[in-house]
Amino acid sequence: MQPYELSLTAAADAIRQRQLSPVELTDSVLRRVAQAEPHLQAYVSVTAEHTRRAARAAERDIAAGRHRGPLHGIPMGLKDLIDVAGTATSASSRVRAGHRAQADSTVAARLEEAGAVLVGKTHTHEFAYGLTTPQTHNAWDRSRVAGGSSGGSAVAVASGMATFALGTDTGGSIRVPAALNGVVGLKPTYGLVPRHGVTSLSWSLDHVGPIARTVEDAAVVLTALAGHDPRDPASLTTPVRDYRPDAGTNLTGLRVGVPRNYYFDHIGPEIEASVRRAIDQLQALGARIVEVEIPMTRYVQATQWGLMVPEATAYHEATLRTVPELYRDDVRILLEAGELMPAGDYLRAQRSRTLMRQEWARMLREVDVIAAPSVPATAVEAGQETITWTDGTVESVSDAYVRLSSPANITGVPSLSLPVGHDTAGLPIGMQLLGRPLGESTLLRVGHAYEQTQPARDLAHAA
Amino acid sequence: MQPYELSLTAAADAIRQRQLSPVELTDSVLRRVAQAEPHLQAYVSVTAEHTRRAARAAERDIAAGRHRGPLHGIPMGLKDLIDVAGTATSASSRVRAGHRAQADSTVAARLEEAGAVLVGKTHTHEFAYGLTTPQTHNAWDRSRVAGGSSGGSAVAVASGMATFALGTDTGGSIRVPAALNGVVGLKPTYGLVPRHGVTSLSWSLDHVGPIARTVEDAAVVLTALAGHDPRDPASLTTPVRDYRPDAGTNLTGLRVGVPRNYYFDHIGPEIEASVRRAIDQLQALGARIVEVEIPMTRYVQATQWGLMVPEATAYHEATLRTVPELYRDDVRILLEAGELMPAGDYLRAQRSRTLMRQEWARMLREVDVIAAPSVPATAVEAGQETITWTDGTVESVSDAYVRLSSPANITGVPSLSLPVGHDTAGLPIGMQLLGRPLGESTLLRVGHAYEQTQPARDLAHAA
Repeated sequence: MQPYELSLTAAADAIRQRQLSPVELTDSVLRRVAQAEPHLQAYVSVTAEHTRRAARAAERDIAAGRHRGPLHGIPMGLKDLIDVAGTATSASSRVRAGHRAQADSTVAARLEEAGAVLVGKTHTHEFAYGLTTPQTHNAWDRSRVAGGSSGGSAVAVASGMATFALGTDTGGSIRVPAALNGVVGLKPTYGLVPRHGVTSLSWSLDHVGPIARTVEDAAVVLTALAGHDPRDPASLTTPVRDYRPDAGTNLTGLRVGVPRNYYFDHIGPEIEASVRRAIDQLQALGARIVEVEIPMTRYVQATQWGLMVPEATAYHEATLRTVPELYRDDVRILLEAGELMPAGDYLRAQRSRTLMRQEWARMLREVDVIAAPSVPATAVEAGQETITWTDGTVESVSDAYVRLSSPANITGVPSLSLPVGHDTAGLPIGMQLLGRPLGESTLLRVGHAYEQTQPARDLAHAA
Repeated sequence: MQPYELSLTAAADAIRQRQLSPVELTDSVLRRVAQAEPHLQAYVSVTAEHTRRAARAAERDIAAGRHRGPLHGIPMGLKDLIDVAGTATSASSRVRAGHRAQADSTVAARLEEAGAVLVGKTHTHEFAYGLTTPQTHNAWDRSRVAGGSSGGSAVAVASGMATFALGTDTGGSIRVPAALNGVVGLKPTYGLVPRHGVTSLSWSLDHVGPIARTVEDAAVVLTALAGHDPRDPASLTTPVRDYRPDAGTNLTGLRVGVPRNYYFDHIGPEIEASVRRAIDQLQALGARIVEVEIPMTRYVQATQWGLMVPEATAYHEATLRTVPELYRDDVRILLEAGELMPAGDYLRAQRSRTLMRQEWARMLREVDVIAAPSVPATAVEAGQETITWTDGTVESVSDAYVRLSSPANITGVPSLSLPVGHDTAGLPIGMQLLGRPLGESTLLRVGHAYEQTQPARDLAHAA
């Protein structure tokens, strides 16, 4: 086994016990990048010189007894919407040519402080406004989409080109690529992780969170990210805590809600089978299964788009006037559409969100977590624009990929996506666990319990 | 002196001491209505039978020792946006023909519980969407506007046709008519008085509050109105308290902010002189005068309209499609304009409000109250559409009347308008005291102290 194949937690243990050095780990990851990146295109830029320097510094510190914790010396990718002082934040867009961030984002600063080592900035669907990340290839099948918008981060983690990564999630952009590449993605509660220094798509829906190989790894990263920062107006003043789950797998007393509507409509049969098998596994661990009725489902799409479209356009207002030709067509068209949206649609979306939050809060009093598919389809072929369901319904790929993830963006509840199998084409399938606001620990405990019952997962093998 | 001329507090004292009976007081007010209403048109409907019955009930209760407090047996007017079970809420609009409220609004229920006696429902500018109340005549000069939108309430109180009244205030609609008719009007902190059962103009800017003859009277009414009601989503959970101010007039230690910008720009010279004289009086009572710079003033108008216009249109969406011809032209045009407003304008207005709240909070750390004119001009002639300032600037009457009051709607801070003199035409002049969120007690203390230094005010004499 090569060091790049280790999970964050395994690598951290090996580093702490001096069985592995940060330099060894980082060199292994950089060699993996050299090998796989030409085929996968997960990175906008790889900072190899800086990476090696940082790894050597981590090695010296640890050798000198200054071990900072489980992220010290761990190689990571950051979605290229996240500012790192002195480097470009390209947002995978020509609009940002020549950009150079003046200061670290809050999350970059916190990870650096924790000792993590930056490998590079990962590709996003341009300005996070899409669900495929067309520059990047799926880690399991290069002919297929990476998912998005944090496609580069998910592919890097899935293929061994980073031990963990950060993504952002406005309608599913952490969980969709995590599910499509067979890794773990966590969209935290709205406001738990500060967004200062992270390029905004839609400020009332944007979240930053970890993409990792295991639930425990995601918990370790979340622990470093969470905590108040007044520079993000939505940042919560929740006390800092350790999210790492206990080793226990006994779920007795836990109520797992299984939706009787919405989440199992129009999904691939192999996905349904895998997710229901995973739910059976939770029951085998002691959980009680409770059917739940998801409220206000017919408002989900209008609310998500009614909030996102005008907020995105407002952010891009100036450049949309001066350099519209620098955007890719798909993104420019969405941004221009936002200029035509009436105020009434935006305020109705805000009111609908208020009601959805109340209704979800009520539903989440009856159960501890909700288990559901992350996305209704596995990774589609690059260029495929629609999905045809068995009843003849045709849905755009974007609409399908965002459909099951956006309720957590609208309501702000946390959602953890984790792998629960592969379809017959070998493509990964994801299940999401949704919980109460600030209920991350419960999600991570359940996800970790599930993972311990499963065989260790291989890395993706498309490159 | 006739009973209808008594202030609320004086009438309440006389009732409590059995020197005046609720029936005597109510009969006096109803006689005054019979005399003045044909000339002033303050009321949409007068509920004389009900009024007499309620007065007799109050008289019986009080005679039997069941005195409920200072509002028991006091005649009041309610702006005809405020639901009273079993009566129409006309909103002074043909759109509401045949309307009948099923239940009391929170404020009507609380006043009834306190023993107040309804005289009738007072005229509003149609659906509160305007600043003149064209049906109603100014209590001091019938050729002049009443101000609006709570014009009927202010005229009723000013002319002795109600001992107090309620108004609503979205951009100045309590304070503007209070100032133009020489009475006291209080727009409380956003969320302090529940709006359940009150027709909405713009939910994020709407407030309900008292119009009365003295500051002390307004404080007594506020005490009955304030307090949480979960049926208004914006209702604050502030503890209930008694707002009635102490008798003291010593303002030593109080910091009174006097704006060096905005509030004294483009105002009538007689208004400036009266307000500055009143500020001198506060200084004579011991207050320290501090110059303040009002922040973000160039965003006030765009923010007020950017929030109000789409929210008003959303409320009227259905009737605007089915019965547009039933609206008066001025209101219909505003509502139709709201359909054309882009979402970007609404969200920019929301962001600007957030920033203005922060900036005002900072300014209000430096002073305890801010003293400023309530409106830049006294009551204009009915039909007059513009005001020409001495520098040649022309401003619409609506824009002028809303200009100095809307900052308190945008920021949600409380604002108390009180009379501080008359111009040479004999028309009343108002000063507003603005304070910190939930700082009503301070405003009322300062206003009450000022009032005690002034001769008792006469009722208006236009009818």
